[in-house]
Amino acid sequence: MKPEGRKQEIIDSAAILFKERGYSAVTMRDLARAMGIKAASLYNHIQSKQEILASIIIDLAEHFTTGMNEIVKSDLTIIKKLEKIIELHIDITLTNADGLASLNNDWMHLEEENLTYFEQMRHDYEENFRQIVRTGVNNGVLANNNIEIIVFSTLSTLRTLYLWYPKQRTIDPDILKKDMITVLLKGII
Amino acid sequence: MKPEGRKQEIIDSAAILFKERGYSAVTMRDLARAMGIKAASLYNHIQSKQEILASIIIDLAEHFTTGMNEIVKSDLTIIKKLEKIIELHIDITLTNADGLASLNNDWMHLEEENLTYFEQMRHDYEENFRQIVRTGVNNGVLANNNIEIIVFSTLSTLRTLYLWYPKQRTIDPDILKKDMITVLLKGII
Repeated sequence: MKPEGRKQEIIDSAAILFKERGYSAVTMRDLARAMGIKAASLYNHIQSKQEILASIIIDLAEHFTTGMNEIVKSDLTIIKKLEKIIELHIDITLTNADGLASLNNDWMHLEEENLTYFEQMRHDYEENFRQIVRTGVNNGVLANNNIEIIVFSTLSTLRTLYLWYPKQRTIDPDILKKDMITVLLKGII
Repeated sequence: MKPEGRKQEIIDSAAILFKERGYSAVTMRDLARAMGIKAASLYNHIQSKQEILASIIIDLAEHFTTGMNEIVKSDLTIIKKLEKIIELHIDITLTNADGLASLNNDWMHLEEENLTYFEQMRHDYEENFRQIVRTGVNNGVLANNNIEIIVFSTLSTLRTLYLWYPKQRTIDPDILKKDMITVLLKGII
């Protein structure tokens, strides 16, 4: 296996252990044992547990950030932009639900520069989302409800998808996207 | 102060500490220190940290259960039942957001009988909610989307209210109820 493939395998295995026990409770020794390799050989690929956590969380946050920036820059309608954001969350959840557990539960264990970088990305993401909603409400494209309630209601569902979807494998990803877009935008009535 | 008032004060203080540090990390000594009293005097009112946790979580779960049972038994329309459920979550969040942190994060630390009782109540609550949604979809009162997606989308928002609302004190509770009902039932368009 190429070194990069091995490194990714370490990161993926770590994400599962972090999800199950939390970052703080997992040691590099635990990780080596779970992978059936020697702890020393982990260090040929990775410097520290912190490097693994940063790799998981920063990669995901950059994925969200890149997706959001493309949506913001686009000349799509407000409704289409919201649909694209919902699809972005579903796509990332489908490919890396384990990593999202670290992002949601263990981001505060990132160390200095990565923590600042992550918090900035999270803040900008939410602010971009809020701005799209605000524009929609001001233009009358979205119904005139409290903007913070709209932002919270939508993001709280999208941010907990990673907990729910792994237990729902019978729902086809295309149905998930279609129905989630309908439910979040048009409600359930 | 009456003994019951003192006991409630201990429970409320504990809920704040559990929210901030998690149940496992808090000792009875920490709790006494936070309250400015002697650890020994806590035991005049309460037997153990476990008794406090059970009191917080079981009281809340019974509050949800009682509310849901009244709604289920009522002859309200499906839409009215869903509105009542949203109001129930908001009312409980407004009165005990700290306790809801324990219910959401520390329920697994309940001991045997209380754990079983809690899990049964949580299961029944979700099943009652699912049944109301299923009836609504089957009767054509609710739009024909995947039932699990409707249940998840709605409950994920209601269950994370306790995290969000304490940071949003500028939103009037009546606006919160009105707009949350609109957003969850009719969507944001």
